[in-house]
Amino acid sequence: MRVPEERLRAYSNLRRDFSEEEFINLQPIQRGGVLTEEARRAILEFGDGYSVCDWCPPKTARLDMITDPPIKQFYEDLATFLGMGVARVVTRCREAKFIAFKMLSQEGDTVVLDSLAHYSSYIAAELAGLRVKEVPNSGPPEYRIDLATYASKIEEVKAETGKLPAAVLLTHVDYMYGNVADAKAVGKIANDYGIPFILNCAYSAGIMPIDGKELGADVIVSSGHKSWAASAPTGILALSASLSEKILSKSSIEGDLSKRRFAAKELALLGCTVMGAPMVTLMASFPAVVKRVERWEEEVQKARFLVDELERIEGVRQAGIRPKAHTLTHMETEPFFRVSEGHKRRGYFLYDELRSRKIVGIQPGLTKHFKFNTYGLSWDQVRYVRDAFHDIAKKYQLNVR
Amino acid sequence: MRVPEERLRAYSNLRRDFSEEEFINLQPIQRGGVLTEEARRAILEFGDGYSVCDWCPPKTARLDMITDPPIKQFYEDLATFLGMGVARVVTRCREAKFIAFKMLSQEGDTVVLDSLAHYSSYIAAELAGLRVKEVPNSGPPEYRIDLATYASKIEEVKAETGKLPAAVLLTHVDYMYGNVADAKAVGKIANDYGIPFILNCAYSAGIMPIDGKELGADVIVSSGHKSWAASAPTGILALSASLSEKILSKSSIEGDLSKRRFAAKELALLGCTVMGAPMVTLMASFPAVVKRVERWEEEVQKARFLVDELERIEGVRQAGIRPKAHTLTHMETEPFFRVSEGHKRRGYFLYDELRSRKIVGIQPGLTKHFKFNTYGLSWDQVRYVRDAFHDIAKKYQLNVR
Repeated sequence: MRVPEERLRAYSNLRRDFSEEEFINLQPIQRGGVLTEEARRAILEFGDGYSVCDWCPPKTARLDMITDPPIKQFYEDLATFLGMGVARVVTRCREAKFIAFKMLSQEGDTVVLDSLAHYSSYIAAELAGLRVKEVPNSGPPEYRIDLATYASKIEEVKAETGKLPAAVLLTHVDYMYGNVADAKAVGKIANDYGIPFILNCAYSAGIMPIDGKELGADVIVSSGHKSWAASAPTGILALSASLSEKILSKSSIEGDLSKRRFAAKELALLGCTVMGAPMVTLMASFPAVVKRVERWEEEVQKARFLVDELERIEGVRQAGIRPKAHTLTHMETEPFFRVSEGHKRRGYFLYDELRSRKIVGIQPGLTKHFKFNTYGLSWDQVRYVRDAFHDIAKKYQLNVR
Repeated sequence: MRVPEERLRAYSNLRRDFSEEEFINLQPIQRGGVLTEEARRAILEFGDGYSVCDWCPPKTARLDMITDPPIKQFYEDLATFLGMGVARVVTRCREAKFIAFKMLSQEGDTVVLDSLAHYSSYIAAELAGLRVKEVPNSGPPEYRIDLATYASKIEEVKAETGKLPAAVLLTHVDYMYGNVADAKAVGKIANDYGIPFILNCAYSAGIMPIDGKELGADVIVSSGHKSWAASAPTGILALSASLSEKILSKSSIEGDLSKRRFAAKELALLGCTVMGAPMVTLMASFPAVVKRVERWEEEVQKARFLVDELERIEGVRQAGIRPKAHTLTHMETEPFFRVSEGHKRRGYFLYDELRSRKIVGIQPGLTKHFKFNTYGLSWDQVRYVRDAFHDIAKKYQLNVR
């Protein structure tokens, strides 16, 4: 059917309204996904549709068997890097969770998860037909997950259903406060019960060093576009050798007439997954990612510095566990909210003020609290952000100590 | 864990071993996925991770609500273009099939599908817990799907299970012979039974004009990287208004402690889907795609011309329905197989000969039969391909009429 010409004009010259070169972008979910130069070259080279499939091996016809570009090797290196047995790239971290849930459970089973889990963890469980049992957090100001409670929640599930949970999920670093949970402690509990332990490393793997074996993880899921300098959509699914056969089990369906079978295809992946551009960005950035996780401590120092500096504005306070152990930061900023109440642009004044200083990424309209992420900013940029906030505070007569 | 430096070198300077500018690429699954210039610019602009989410509306936080870039409008225009009520972009055509199967069925239901369906249709059914009942094809040389049999297969399912099939799936254009099936005929049968009709347009929508309403389709699935000049991974899921609520039904899971709910999120999509680069290529190419489907008849003419010209090589014969109604073409090429038997490179001689003439995309090693796709080639390029095949034939003393 016809789409009017004037509507089609909306798709010409698609652009972001700022450039990463010109602006400092503090967007909490974007810092770890900024492409490397290598990835920018690779995405153009493999931009066309199925271009990674030029050398798909005809017999298996599987993405993970392709050696040019070196996808097969990449899967091995990815598993090594994460301290796991087997790795696959899937379309999203949430898809990785769904795959793990689906293949580790039966309809009606339960997964025990932390109450700071991302919405996609809940929905992946729902689509897999699972119930959820939440592990509480301490509430304000720390929102600390009570990790020891994983054991009693497992017992509760057993008492209520007569069956152990199908899986235990921990969000390694949560999306709301950037708290880093002690994964090893949960791994120990899950392992003691013999329950598969799924560690959601969407905000950790790719920017922090992760050793799944040491943490006792059976499944690590992560997000390439969140933390691996890759384009969306890319998820990572890394498995212990012992669980990989179950989770990557092959298709067994057969055509009733044709007798066609697809026994080489990994069922829950629906066969091949990321057959293009985002996959090559993940690969092209991988050497830089391997190196950058070694500099994690310095990244944390920058976040702590900025928290300290912002807290010099009277009434501003970081939420979540102190001191910061991650660059994703949640600030409570009541004083800016008070300013917004008398400002003609209301809550948007803060966005405007920051933007006029070439800073973006704080959610437009928010002033009472907001999140930011300093990951990958230089010290000069962090200091520039500090100066900008102090300037704005002073402009509106807030007290800066 | 450490990945050795020498292994990391494999990821520097990732390149295809040919360029689309220098070579003619006949790869059967790649012709419809070559990016437009507009898409090449857009993929760089939105290469970074979550860059399409710069203006994610905070309240709904849903990809399909984003107006900058104009994703919301794009979903509307996509639905209009396909003659459907509602459209979503998902990660792959196979994911679109899985979503439709999953949301339209109960565990153990049956889907009736054509026996030329792609493997991913079977696997999507398997993951959704469905059985398959195949509609036969006529076998060589035409491999024509016996469309009227859809009715008797539906009756068979009813007799065997006491229940109508959960869905009927037709592969509009099959991957093996490029036969175009009469979708309207199957739509009529499915509609008469009141069974949802899923039309797999992976090889049709985006290159051929498609009007889902006219064809009686309840669900249209397609592949952006196959047929819409987009990067992988991108799938299209277009729905009739009446089924859209069911297939896009919202999450209803609730945290037992936190009482968190995610009632805005579309369950089977797992919330947001293609949050980046491939999505913007689809959008940037859309105006060109809307125009190119009008030139479909000319594309078919080029395929027919090349078939006629290749059949001048004695013993070469097109497989599938004649004359071609699609550009994906399957040739039986016994004479080239005979040459290969006496050639030191065996089956690879044909690949070598073509490559030395700057033609790629015929599967390396194949000579007895192979597939190609002329979609989007100029007449000059098609004639050049014809000349190359004739040259090679003559070089090996095959008879060219």
